[in-house]
Amino acid sequence: MKLTGFLTEERIKSRMIENLAKIVGKNGVLSTPEDLAVYSYDGTFAEGVPRAVVLPETTGQVSEIVKLAEEARVPLVARGMGSGLAAGSIPTNKDGIVVCFTRMNRILEIDEENATVRAEAGVVTAELQAEVEKMGLFYPPDPSSIRHSTIGGNIACNAGGPRCLKYGVTGNYILGLTVVLADGRILKTGGKPIKDVTGYNLSALFASSEGTLGLITEALLRLVARPLFVKTAMAEYNSLANASRTVNAILSEGIVPATLELVDQTAIVCIEEAMKLGLATDVEAVLIIETDGSDEPTVIREIESAGRICKEKGARTVKVASTEEERNGLWKARRSVGSSLARKAPNKLGEDITVPRSAIPDIVQKIRDISARHGLPIVIFGHAGDGNLHPNILFDKREPEDWAKVEQMMGEVFDAALSVGGTLSGEHGVGILKRPYFEKALGPVSVDIQRRIKQVLDPLNILNPGKIFED
Amino acid sequence: MKLTGFLTEERIKSRMIENLAKIVGKNGVLSTPEDLAVYSYDGTFAEGVPRAVVLPETTGQVSEIVKLAEEARVPLVARGMGSGLAAGSIPTNKDGIVVCFTRMNRILEIDEENATVRAEAGVVTAELQAEVEKMGLFYPPDPSSIRHSTIGGNIACNAGGPRCLKYGVTGNYILGLTVVLADGRILKTGGKPIKDVTGYNLSALFASSEGTLGLITEALLRLVARPLFVKTAMAEYNSLANASRTVNAILSEGIVPATLELVDQTAIVCIEEAMKLGLATDVEAVLIIETDGSDEPTVIREIESAGRICKEKGARTVKVASTEEERNGLWKARRSVGSSLARKAPNKLGEDITVPRSAIPDIVQKIRDISARHGLPIVIFGHAGDGNLHPNILFDKREPEDWAKVEQMMGEVFDAALSVGGTLSGEHGVGILKRPYFEKALGPVSVDIQRRIKQVLDPLNILNPGKIFED
Repeated sequence: MKLTGFLTEERIKSRMIENLAKIVGKNGVLSTPEDLAVYSYDGTFAEGVPRAVVLPETTGQVSEIVKLAEEARVPLVARGMGSGLAAGSIPTNKDGIVVCFTRMNRILEIDEENATVRAEAGVVTAELQAEVEKMGLFYPPDPSSIRHSTIGGNIACNAGGPRCLKYGVTGNYILGLTVVLADGRILKTGGKPIKDVTGYNLSALFASSEGTLGLITEALLRLVARPLFVKTAMAEYNSLANASRTVNAILSEGIVPATLELVDQTAIVCIEEAMKLGLATDVEAVLIIETDGSDEPTVIREIESAGRICKEKGARTVKVASTEEERNGLWKARRSVGSSLARKAPNKLGEDITVPRSAIPDIVQKIRDISARHGLPIVIFGHAGDGNLHPNILFDKREPEDWAKVEQMMGEVFDAALSVGGTLSGEHGVGILKRPYFEKALGPVSVDIQRRIKQVLDPLNILNPGKIFED
Repeated sequence: MKLTGFLTEERIKSRMIENLAKIVGKNGVLSTPEDLAVYSYDGTFAEGVPRAVVLPETTGQVSEIVKLAEEARVPLVARGMGSGLAAGSIPTNKDGIVVCFTRMNRILEIDEENATVRAEAGVVTAELQAEVEKMGLFYPPDPSSIRHSTIGGNIACNAGGPRCLKYGVTGNYILGLTVVLADGRILKTGGKPIKDVTGYNLSALFASSEGTLGLITEALLRLVARPLFVKTAMAEYNSLANASRTVNAILSEGIVPATLELVDQTAIVCIEEAMKLGLATDVEAVLIIETDGSDEPTVIREIESAGRICKEKGARTVKVASTEEERNGLWKARRSVGSSLARKAPNKLGEDITVPRSAIPDIVQKIRDISARHGLPIVIFGHAGDGNLHPNILFDKREPEDWAKVEQMMGEVFDAALSVGGTLSGEHGVGILKRPYFEKALGPVSVDIQRRIKQVLDPLNILNPGKIFED
C-alpha cells in the first residue's frame, strides 16, 4: 500500500473505504448504515457510529490499515466482540474506523511441553480454553463475558474473573504480544521463557492500555495444568462484616480458593424475586467458595477447612455441594444475578470498583447509603477475595430523571471507593465512562506520565482517541 | 532548595557536594576516594567511581536531589546494596552521583488484614521477609542475594529466585510504588486493591527498568500466608534430558513445587571436589524439588508424587528428606555451588539466560560445546521449572587471554539462548554487561520503543545513563 504525495488528507479520508478494501478485500470492509449500527455499541449505553468497519485477517493487513489511517489522520478503534463495559471500543469520532478482530480467530499453536498457546487477538476466550483443556492444559482467566469476549479484548482490559483470586488476571498469563504500533510497525514482545527481565516490560504496558497504545494482533499465553477436581460451598451470613472477615480468615490460613464470591442482600433479594430458588432473603450476604486442584483429597480438605472457617466466623448455614448437580445449584444464584437484574429494572449500570479486602463492609455500607439517598436500588456482588465488587445501579433509561441520578450515584460510588483506598476499576478499564474520574483517582502526576507515554507511542492520537484521558 | 538563575551548569556541578549536603546533611554525602571506592563496584567485574555518594533518608530528599541533578545535568545512579549482577548500579560517568538507599530502610506498615507491607526501597529483602513472617505472612521472592539485596534493587531488576516457580517473581508482588521522576516530581502508583486496571500499568513499567526511568523510593507489596510445611527431595539422573522431562511431567500433573532446581554434572563435580559431600559425580544432572503449603498431608503427597514422577522419568535415585537435618543435607549441594566455584577458579562470570523449558537439554548441550571449544569450564545450575539457568564461566582474570575468551563465550551463550527461543536475562537485568546483546535479543522495533519511553520519562538522560541501551 503506497499512497502518492499528491493525495491530500481530505481526499485520503474520502477514499478510505476504497483503500481499506485494497488491503482486506471488499468483503472485509463494512460501511452501510445497517452494518455500522452493529459496531456502534458495546456492553454499555454508549453509542458511536464509525465511518467504516474493517475486518483484517492478518497482522500484515493491520499494519497496512494503520499506515493508511496514519496518513489520513483517521482514528482507529480496536474491537473484539464488543462486550466491553467501559465503552472502550465505541468510536468517538465520525471519521473513526473500527478495526474488528473477529476474523483473526485462529489458535496458532498449542505447545504442550512448554504449556503455552499462541492465538490471534480475535479468538473467543472460552474457545481457547476449550481447546487447551482437551490437552489437559488450562487457561484460568474467566471474565463473565468469556463466551463472547476475545483474547485481544481481555488483554487490552487486563480482564479478571472469579477464578483470578487463585490464578491471577489475564496479564499474569501474557508471555508475549504482537502489536501493531501507531506508525504501522510490528512490535513483538516476550517469548516462551517464563521469566524475562530483558528490558522494559512492554507486554504489561500494552495490557490494560485499551487500544490506545497499539493494536494487539496476537498473544502468546502461559498455561497451567488443568485442575481435575473442584468443590463448591455456599455460606449464608446474617452479617456482611462476618462474611468479609471470613474472606481474610480463609486466605490467612493459607487456603487460596479458586473463587471467593460475595453476593449481598440486595442481590439475593433480586435473584430470589426473579428465580424463586428458595434462597433465604433475610441474610445480609452469601459467600460462594470454590477450591480446585489436581489432588482430590486436598481439594476436599480445603473446602472443608473453608466451611469450618465460615462457621467460626458466624455463617448461619454452610452447604458443601457433594454432587455436580448440587454444585450447579449453588452457582445458580451467582450466575443468575445478571438476568435477575434485567427482570427487576429495565436498565442497569454495572461498575467494578476495587478496594482493600478489609474495606468491603465499609464500602458496602457507603453504597447502601448512596442508594438510599437517591432512591435507586444498587445491587452488589463480586470477587470478594480480590476486593473487586460490582455495584449495579438499577434504573429506567426512559425516565429522564433516572439517568441524571445514575450519573450522580456513579460518581459517589467512585468517591466512596477512593475514600477507602480503592480505585475505579478492577477489570473493566476506564474507557469513556470512567474518564471523568481518572485524574481524581490517580492524581495529576500519574495522568501526566500516562499522557506522555500515549503521546510518544501515538503522536498523532489516532489509536482509540477519547478513551482513558479527558480531552 | 532553590537555585538561582545566576548559577551556570558548571558552577552547579562544582558545587554539587555542597548542595547535596544542604539536602541530606553533611553526613549524608560521601566524597573521599576511600568512601567512593566502596560504591564503585557491584557483584560483577565492572567498576566506576562516582563524583559523590548521597544517602537520602526520605522521598522528599530524593526529589530535591533529582531536581539538583536535573539543573546540573548530572547523572544519578540508584543503588541499594550493590549486589547487582549486570553492573546496573555502576556509574558510567565521572560526574555521576550514586543515590544509595541504604538509609531508607524502614518498614512503614504491615497490614495483616489485607496482607500487605509498605517499605522503603533500602530495606534488605531478608529482613522484610523475617518481619512479615512473624505475623504468619510471607513475601515469597527469594533471589540468592536475599540477605544483602534490597527491595528497591529487587524491584528495579524484577528479581526472581528458586521459589518463584510457584510464587512468581518480585513484579508479581508489587501493588504500588513511590517513584521520584527525572524532574523531581513524586509519582505514586497503585494501592492496596489486588486488582487494578485504572490506566496504564506504570508499576510494571518501573519494575525491571533498572533505575533508568525513575528512582523507586517506596513499595507497597502483596503478601500471602506463610506456608507451614515444606518437603524436599533430590533426584539423580544419568541423563539430563530425563531430568528435564521430569520437570514438565511434574508440572503437567498439576503439582507446582515451590522449587525445581537443576544442577548439572559440571556443577556437581565442582561441588564434590570442594565440599566432599559424597555426591555421585557420574550423574548427568540432579534435581532438587521442594513442595510447601499450609496443609501437611498435601505437601507430603505432592513431594511423594514428584518423587514417583522422577523415577518414572528415569531418575537413578530419589531421596526425600524426612527430617530438617536431611533437608539441609539435600540443599547443601545447591547452596554450595557459589563457594565451590570460588575454589575451582579465581573468577567466575554468572549469566542468567532463560529458555523455554523444553529447550533445557538442548541449551545445556550447546553450552557444553562452547565450553569445550574455548577450553574454559562452564558450570550450569538454576531454576529448571522456569527455564532460567545460570551458566557460570570459570576463569582467571589475571590471565589476559582468559578475559577475551570469556567475553567471546558469553556472547556465544547468549546466541545459543536466542537460537532456542530464549532470552538474555531471567532475573539479573541488562545493566552494562548485556547491553551489546540487547538489540540482537529484542529487535530494533522493541529497542526503539523502549528508547522513546526512556526519552520521554528522562529527556535529559540523567537517570542511570549508559545502562540497558547502547549509547
